Amino acid sequence: MFKYSIRSLLLPIALSFFCVTHSQADVLSANEQVQIEALKNTALNSELSYQIVESLTTEVGHRLMGSEGDKKAIKWAIAKMHSLGFDKVWTEEISGPKWIRGEASARITSPFPQEVVVIALGGSVGTGEKGIEAPVVHFKTFADLKKAPEGSLLGKIAFVSYQMTRHIDGDGYGAAVGTRVAGASVAAEKGAIALIMRSVGTDNNRIAHTGVMRYKDKVKKIPAAALSNPDADLLVNQFSRGKPVSFYLRMTSSNPHGETVKSANVIGEITGSEFPNEIVAIGAHLDSWDVGTGALDDGIGVAMVLASAHYIAQLPKRPKKTLRVILFAAEEVGLLGAKAYIKKHETKMVNHVIGAEWDFGLGRIYKMTPGVGASSLNGIRELAQVLAPMGVALAPTNKARAQSDMSLLSDAGMPSINFSPDGSQYFDYHHTENDTLDKVDALALKQNTAVYTVFAYFATQANINFRK
Amino acid sequence: MFKYSIRSLLLPIALSFFCVTHSQADVLSANEQVQIEALKNTALNSELSYQIVESLTTEVGHRLMGSEGDKKAIKWAIAKMHSLGFDKVWTEEISGPKWIRGEASARITSPFPQEVVVIALGGSVGTGEKGIEAPVVHFKTFADLKKAPEGSLLGKIAFVSYQMTRHIDGDGYGAAVGTRVAGASVAAEKGAIALIMRSVGTDNNRIAHTGVMRYKDKVKKIPAAALSNPDADLLVNQFSRGKPVSFYLRMTSSNPHGETVKSANVIGEITGSEFPNEIVAIGAHLDSWDVGTGALDDGIGVAMVLASAHYIAQLPKRPKKTLRVILFAAEEVGLLGAKAYIKKHETKMVNHVIGAEWDFGLGRIYKMTPGVGASSLNGIRELAQVLAPMGVALAPTNKARAQSDMSLLSDAGMPSINFSPDGSQYFDYHHTENDTLDKVDALALKQNTAVYTVFAYFATQANINFRK
Repeated sequence: MFKYSIRSLLLPIALSFFCVTHSQADVLSANEQVQIEALKNTALNSELSYQIVESLTTEVGHRLMGSEGDKKAIKWAIAKMHSLGFDKVWTEEISGPKWIRGEASARITSPFPQEVVVIALGGSVGTGEKGIEAPVVHFKTFADLKKAPEGSLLGKIAFVSYQMTRHIDGDGYGAAVGTRVAGASVAAEKGAIALIMRSVGTDNNRIAHTGVMRYKDKVKKIPAAALSNPDADLLVNQFSRGKPVSFYLRMTSSNPHGETVKSANVIGEITGSEFPNEIVAIGAHLDSWDVGTGALDDGIGVAMVLASAHYIAQLPKRPKKTLRVILFAAEEVGLLGAKAYIKKHETKMVNHVIGAEWDFGLGRIYKMTPGVGASSLNGIRELAQVLAPMGVALAPTNKARAQSDMSLLSDAGMPSINFSPDGSQYFDYHHTENDTLDKVDALALKQNTAVYTVFAYFATQANINFRK
Repeated sequence: MFKYSIRSLLLPIALSFFCVTHSQADVLSANEQVQIEALKNTALNSELSYQIVESLTTEVGHRLMGSEGDKKAIKWAIAKMHSLGFDKVWTEEISGPKWIRGEASARITSPFPQEVVVIALGGSVGTGEKGIEAPVVHFKTFADLKKAPEGSLLGKIAFVSYQMTRHIDGDGYGAAVGTRVAGASVAAEKGAIALIMRSVGTDNNRIAHTGVMRYKDKVKKIPAAALSNPDADLLVNQFSRGKPVSFYLRMTSSNPHGETVKSANVIGEITGSEFPNEIVAIGAHLDSWDVGTGALDDGIGVAMVLASAHYIAQLPKRPKKTLRVILFAAEEVGLLGAKAYIKKHETKMVNHVIGAEWDFGLGRIYKMTPGVGASSLNGIRELAQVLAPMGVALAPTNKARAQSDMSLLSDAGMPSINFSPDGSQYFDYHHTENDTLDKVDALALKQNTAVYTVFAYFATQANINFRK
């Protein structure tokens, strides 16, 4: 009985292995199967992607859309693509609003005066040179702030102390980021003169996290800043004494009305030898916030897709389809590069046969989730087979959008793969001064580059229509 | 054979246990043995020491000698001692040089311009309002800087990139701190116009570590600053390109000639019922650097010794000897409080029967090292017996000085115990903005408070002359 039950379990497994082996032969030739393993090993043993992110962070540094750093980064990316053996390299200009960070300082002025570490949220207006001082009203969550009666914050500063939770997939971000994006206008509608919030981050460093915020139309624009986690704790602890709390905030950030700045998507290709008009797209964003050196966000993504393309460019023969690397501009300030890309390539979106972006996490990829036509899932399982020995599991769902910028390409019909890395440490550093080279996990970067290399090779060679 | 060998091993162990039990009865009565266990459990289960450090960091914050924070801290400590049931509370004024931190900013100006995070070393002169820009010469170690030929740094900035190593006992600090204390004058003797160095710290945060520095007499005083570890990495990486490196430094710190500021040691006692003139001293320093909130350095020490004294003050009967808690002033700027204490109490140092300070680490105490008369070592072994179940091992040496301020009291003849905690994380936060309440290990703090409570009770009750 026992033996039989084992057999009845083993039989389908053995069959499925057989099927995979059989169909793999259909998709990749024996030669290509050797090649894909060789590429994987090349990536796993190469320092190239680390060298690329070291170069970007050392020679360029941070690169807010339109800044000097951004201009340098565009030149850097063009030069890097040429030196890595790309066949075509070009830029596609975009424009967007100018924002100047300026300086930010703050202190609790009552009941126990202490200086605190704050950072302006991206896009926030300033306080004026003299700063503002006002009583503070404490809300534990954004929902609580939303519930505050109209007019109840008149002349006051709203403080939301909600703390983001840590998850491997960054799941805590969604619950925390609402305050950052929309909190200022909600507070302003109730009369507040500023919004301060606990940083959207999982660390306990005295370094605050920035990130984009938006104002509602027709609502007064008030300054919005994030406190470092230890400073948010301090403010909460001061509230616990039951005495009135007041706060001084000075931010010289400005958002010059009407002024725009320019940037550009940087695009490079390894041109396909058989189907040059069929595009496999891998991407990352080249811009970063104007703090740190953007090593994780999204330097490693840039490094990974550039290195992957280089390994494929080094093969004796060009891939069948075209491999396109898109380094998007202005992701941080609202996916401006991605929006422009879709507009420009609207009629050719149908040629984008599949795509993947890296813009999250710093640990090893442990999961891949497809978003492809049902008929091509068998092909995806073969890709998964090559990646499985590296600990990458195939998710049982098929609804993924690509990450970040490329999610818009997914929405425009591009079949996509979402490779999920361990992101449990990502929000310790995300959008902070602390996003620097030393945070890069060099071993994980090798693995992740290998995953993107394998994906890129598989997708450019495989005889699969991922839309079907 | 096997049985006999086991027996031959066990016999001396059994005897030694017997001996300890026997002699323990000589030192502490049965009642006192019950009491010491009860005190240990009280401390292990109480939140008091955490509440004290929460109070100090929330209501006072940082407290550089002579600052507003320092003045508040002195008032805070007096009030806290009264509320905790001390019999006597007083202050002993001290004075020392005034130093103003001012602002500090810096950037690499060539070959790849980037802003970096720096902090002025404590006591450094400034650069003048306009700052200075100069070529940088890189030294891997302080020894290398010392070997540089006279005049070779004329008009240049010296950069020492040596990185402190992490050890449980903080052993890496000694090898790294020389540059901080003496580096500026060594560089100045060779013509340098400023010293920049990698922070003495084990973290990789974009937060630099301050700490005291000294100028040699008759050598030009040049500005001295520490870079955060990621910024030191960046500078080293820029050097690796083989191009000339230049650096801009602006520090408005100042050291007004002749101006002094005042502070005070805060001292409290639980007066002995039988030998009030015999003093068991436990201490910590009340001052901190003017960054962070001095939670670890030395807020937890302050909390630990105050809580320990409180538990003993709560006993139905006063201890036999006097328990004195000394909260030293101005440790950070050069043990000024300890020096003043010794001067003031010179004739009464002989009454200090034993002492211990906490001014290192944040993990659990794992080792105690005595520095007592050889004849009293048996008594120390009995104390060790009470602490052993908490994982505290008795070191096999007997040459310890007390920590920090009290090392000067040890040098003046006071028998001492050095309780060593796990300090492997300490230099992640030491002398930085990041030294805040959230870094306190609440469980370790309970254990460590229990150790100091047990020590204090044992020392005030035991019929031992620790000098002999």
